[in-house]
Amino acid sequence: MALIGSEDRSPDDTGWLHPAWLPRSLTAPLRARTVLVVAPEHPVIRTVVDELSHAGAKAIWLTDTDATASRAVIDLTITIDPELPPESFRLARHGGQTSLVGADPKGVLYGHFHLLRRGRLAFQGQWRQPVSTPAIGLRMLDHWDNIDVHPVMGQVERGYAGGSLFYDAGSLRWDLGRVDQYARLLASVGVNAVSINNVNVHATETTLLTTRLDWVTRLADHLRPWGITVFLSVNFAAPIVLGDLDSCDPCDQRVRQWWADTTDRVYAAVPDLGGYLVKADSEGQPGPFAYGRSHADGANLLARALSPHQGVVLWRCFVYNHRQDWRDRSTDRARAAFDHFVELDGAFLDNVILQIKHGPIDFQVREPVSPLLAAMPRTRVCLELQVTAEYTGQQRHVHYLPEAWQEILGFRPWGDETKLWQLMAIGQSQSPESTTTESPRSVRSGGAIAAVSNVGRDEFWTGHPFAQANLYGFARLAWDPTLTPAAILDEWIGSTFPEANPDLAPLLRQIILGSRALYESYTAPNGVGFMVTPGSHYGPSVDGYEYSPWGTYHFADREGIGVDRTRASGSGYTGQYHQPWADLFESVETCPEELLLFFHHVRWDHRMHDGDTLAQHIYNSHFDGAAAIHSLARLWTQADGLVEPRLYRRVAERLDEQCRCAQEWCDQITSYVWRHSGIPDDHGRPLY
Amino acid sequence: MALIGSEDRSPDDTGWLHPAWLPRSLTAPLRARTVLVVAPEHPVIRTVVDELSHAGAKAIWLTDTDATASRAVIDLTITIDPELPPESFRLARHGGQTSLVGADPKGVLYGHFHLLRRGRLAFQGQWRQPVSTPAIGLRMLDHWDNIDVHPVMGQVERGYAGGSLFYDAGSLRWDLGRVDQYARLLASVGVNAVSINNVNVHATETTLLTTRLDWVTRLADHLRPWGITVFLSVNFAAPIVLGDLDSCDPCDQRVRQWWADTTDRVYAAVPDLGGYLVKADSEGQPGPFAYGRSHADGANLLARALSPHQGVVLWRCFVYNHRQDWRDRSTDRARAAFDHFVELDGAFLDNVILQIKHGPIDFQVREPVSPLLAAMPRTRVCLELQVTAEYTGQQRHVHYLPEAWQEILGFRPWGDETKLWQLMAIGQSQSPESTTTESPRSVRSGGAIAAVSNVGRDEFWTGHPFAQANLYGFARLAWDPTLTPAAILDEWIGSTFPEANPDLAPLLRQIILGSRALYESYTAPNGVGFMVTPGSHYGPSVDGYEYSPWGTYHFADREGIGVDRTRASGSGYTGQYHQPWADLFESVETCPEELLLFFHHVRWDHRMHDGDTLAQHIYNSHFDGAAAIHSLARLWTQADGLVEPRLYRRVAERLDEQCRCAQEWCDQITSYVWRHSGIPDDHGRPLY
Repeated sequence: MALIGSEDRSPDDTGWLHPAWLPRSLTAPLRARTVLVVAPEHPVIRTVVDELSHAGAKAIWLTDTDATASRAVIDLTITIDPELPPESFRLARHGGQTSLVGADPKGVLYGHFHLLRRGRLAFQGQWRQPVSTPAIGLRMLDHWDNIDVHPVMGQVERGYAGGSLFYDAGSLRWDLGRVDQYARLLASVGVNAVSINNVNVHATETTLLTTRLDWVTRLADHLRPWGITVFLSVNFAAPIVLGDLDSCDPCDQRVRQWWADTTDRVYAAVPDLGGYLVKADSEGQPGPFAYGRSHADGANLLARALSPHQGVVLWRCFVYNHRQDWRDRSTDRARAAFDHFVELDGAFLDNVILQIKHGPIDFQVREPVSPLLAAMPRTRVCLELQVTAEYTGQQRHVHYLPEAWQEILGFRPWGDETKLWQLMAIGQSQSPESTTTESPRSVRSGGAIAAVSNVGRDEFWTGHPFAQANLYGFARLAWDPTLTPAAILDEWIGSTFPEANPDLAPLLRQIILGSRALYESYTAPNGVGFMVTPGSHYGPSVDGYEYSPWGTYHFADREGIGVDRTRASGSGYTGQYHQPWADLFESVETCPEELLLFFHHVRWDHRMHDGDTLAQHIYNSHFDGAAAIHSLARLWTQADGLVEPRLYRRVAERLDEQCRCAQEWCDQITSYVWRHSGIPDDHGRPLY
Repeated sequence: MALIGSEDRSPDDTGWLHPAWLPRSLTAPLRARTVLVVAPEHPVIRTVVDELSHAGAKAIWLTDTDATASRAVIDLTITIDPELPPESFRLARHGGQTSLVGADPKGVLYGHFHLLRRGRLAFQGQWRQPVSTPAIGLRMLDHWDNIDVHPVMGQVERGYAGGSLFYDAGSLRWDLGRVDQYARLLASVGVNAVSINNVNVHATETTLLTTRLDWVTRLADHLRPWGITVFLSVNFAAPIVLGDLDSCDPCDQRVRQWWADTTDRVYAAVPDLGGYLVKADSEGQPGPFAYGRSHADGANLLARALSPHQGVVLWRCFVYNHRQDWRDRSTDRARAAFDHFVELDGAFLDNVILQIKHGPIDFQVREPVSPLLAAMPRTRVCLELQVTAEYTGQQRHVHYLPEAWQEILGFRPWGDETKLWQLMAIGQSQSPESTTTESPRSVRSGGAIAAVSNVGRDEFWTGHPFAQANLYGFARLAWDPTLTPAAILDEWIGSTFPEANPDLAPLLRQIILGSRALYESYTAPNGVGFMVTPGSHYGPSVDGYEYSPWGTYHFADREGIGVDRTRASGSGYTGQYHQPWADLFESVETCPEELLLFFHHVRWDHRMHDGDTLAQHIYNSHFDGAAAIHSLARLWTQADGLVEPRLYRRVAERLDEQCRCAQEWCDQITSYVWRHSGIPDDHGRPLY
């Protein structure tokens, strides 16, 4: 048995580091170019000038637009046009000169990296790109890094890529060089915010607000030049934990004053802090319920303290009873976030954003989109995704998450043309009427999207080298949710392997595209979820959570399996959706089959649309899925010699493990179904 | 989630300590007595004299038997008669004088404590007790204490009573006062050996052989005055782990020399060390298999090094494949110890003792007695029990283990009158012919019994105060295996609560006697075993180990449950027994029902002897068992005021937890049976 955290799966501090999607060769087109930068003094502009310089360009930085330089010798001009939407940029080339116009320093930075992605084309021919504007204003990564190594969860909770970039066994790292490189990677794809500590805020981490505030300052100093704003996860009980008060009641004047004073001191040290991230009344974390207060009371408490500093509260809606009685079928964890929050719509201050997981349970490979995301028109909302693949292979399995995220962002809550990402863009779960009368993009200040980071000290940053594409893809989708997973993958391949043999890209596409469906095919079937090893959440344990207090049951017996969440006979969860979903999900006939067991308890001999029984359907998907992974592993041998040997070996090792684990999933689930259903496999494959 | 080890369940270092079965009042009859001790200078005799003195007696110690003292004023004479069997004693009283005759210093020590257990009768009337002789020569407790806190297993592996008496987070404890008190408790019931470190010997613990040898010396110095010999658990790979050699091949001359030299140095420091305890080729521990050598080669390697010092090797037979494939039903872990060792009979040197767990699996609440114990007539064998209740309630549940041990010790391997304990007494699994031609007691030097200790820094020593009775009972059964659990319990009650209200003893008997059957009634049914939470081994998880590599399966499906270990259709394990057991276990009809699922895969609708289906039998035992625990908890409220408040509260808390946990076991197992079998409960009790 091992820690559930990050520690020991990947090499760390070997002295070698993979450059991810910013290899040195990517900047080759800039070499020996003369670049004129006309922009005010600003740390982010300074970063761009440094970047140009490191690339071998000659940068001429003029802070005064009236100053002149000989245009004749200039290859690239970089200027600012404050008329553009915030953070936007426009790229063009004509008359032998390339131009980058940014709305502001961050726009310039993002445009610079976008120019690099054009490769040699950046300085060839005549072309003009439309203005590139981020769809969502706040594009954030949440780190679940602990300062102290947690006895069970380790240095990084649910981290699968080595130690923390920030902390090392109780201390802030002395050498923050990796943080600088990380910030550069994030900036290159437009991420503009990071929360620097785990949402489960233990005693030591609580002191980031006070005695360890200088650590926040230091991290902010390293992230600021890359246009990245720092957020702090705070402990709702901080006034008590820090020993100052005996209460954290949000309606207690002393508590309000404490947060105001503390926050003033925090902003004195870090004037551009983004704000606070809070997990309250969730999985043992303290919260307003202890005082009979609502989550609006709790969130507004912090919002009031942050308001004078233009800070915001990201308040997580991951609130449910984690001490449920498995015998009690009347309680449905899927209902919890909606039931807790929807009635509070309109009660939150303007600088509160509710951060809502994409599904009603917890980052499973397949869940319906959370109905809460489209249920609070008078509240700012933020979609929460998870790049670290806690339940989706833990960066040991190939699992290209943008394939799931695109489905989520493209979900149409009202069945009409309004897509979920448009709600995130305006930051409010507007009714279709209001979104049609006003272009979602026109109200951009409120939008937000966040994801749990997947990086660590691993020499490939992410454990599985292909998991870099998930981080890349999250950022690109946050910028432009209309990008397809395939297009993003091609971008990532182009940046990461810019000079590779042409045989490589098709091979990578073959392995990575479709990997989400493949992972789904051999794990918990048809949206039923969980079936993972308790604690570690890696590998199969069909009944692992079946008799637990966590509210994640499948209710399998000799008759069938699945959770009845219908209004007719179940928990009524389907009623939390707008039409047409409320009815589509309600009926076994119209419910999408990939979600069948999420919404319905179904007999093993239920006939699926293709005529197979449910049991046979599960046999087929699982045997086929496990076999497909073995094929991918064989396919990868063709990459030997096409990529650097370290990367080849790392992927090969991970694929070996994926083969073993996929076969284990397949055999345990099919044998479980066989033992319960007694239905033999039509194809006579081995059931144990 | 928490560490699996001992750390956090019981108060530690509160400054208060329960005296266990040696309360101060027990020594009251000695107060103001004049005692003549005629015995040679010896640390154990010194201990007895100190004991007398602390009890308020006037002790006159003469080391020369020719010296005289006025007999008239003497209340108790203590003398030595070397004609008695080793460690024996005889107690008598006539002419107004009590006499204790010991065979040797240890006999005197044991006789002294036995006299105390007679209470006021020790100095009243005329009486004569027969010579009391220990049935088994080596009566040992194995500590699974780690020096370093293991990241998963904690300070004490499978310890449920606070920290280690010996070590504290990497160091030997400075204050060994608790060790002295512990040694006194052990000596008072005749335990004469202790192994001081975990059989899983990690890197730090390996250095007890070398750079930390002074710690062994210090512990031996504290245990020696109580007649307790120290054993060391050693790492078979020590020559490699300590960096001296690149091999631990038992047939490599360099390895042999290393062990000889190292052992010489160990004995120079601790001349009376008992020897080494070894777990080799087991659950990841290194061993001779790595070099293609047998366990006889491995054990004899150490035996040769120990032989010049009269040391012995206790070599554990807990050898099995812990990376079994759950799909493979041809491998049966129950067979493993027998299959590995029986063919080596006769190949071990005289100072090797094979230490064999009582059952073929691992300390479950119900297993058949290991056939290996009666299968090696030319090899010294030792029975291994477990006082720390890893699978039997972890000292949170009332579980009186002597009730199981008496069954084990009383097992008749050949169906005739020869009992297992008689084999342990002679230390060899003799054929019935040889045991009948020679009284087992006449060859006592070879016998041994060992048990994994259950004590820690907890203020009640054992977590559950009633678990003290398990430690007490182990020692008493090791001395006299013919004692009944009821008699031992009465002894323990009498010593532990010597001045209690007469209502207490019947209450304690009602709660403690039968508690093993009660625990069995609500946990894994009919000998099928496991069904515990993986890792912690506490609480139910019916399928927790079903798809694991550990070889502990129940094979439940919609038809039935249990492991076919017959010769006719199963693993053939029944063939490892002598007759009549080989045939009795083979048949579903004659197999004892409490072991039915250990030996047979049985349909849910199989009719038990009482006419109930197997499913109904499980419903009945589990609902009744859980209900009985609730009754015990109510019964305990009658003890309020009869015992010290701390003890009352501790037991009450543990009973509350036992109620919760027993109900959980009941509900999970009955629901599991219901979901698989579809058989409703005749009495309509809730199934989920």
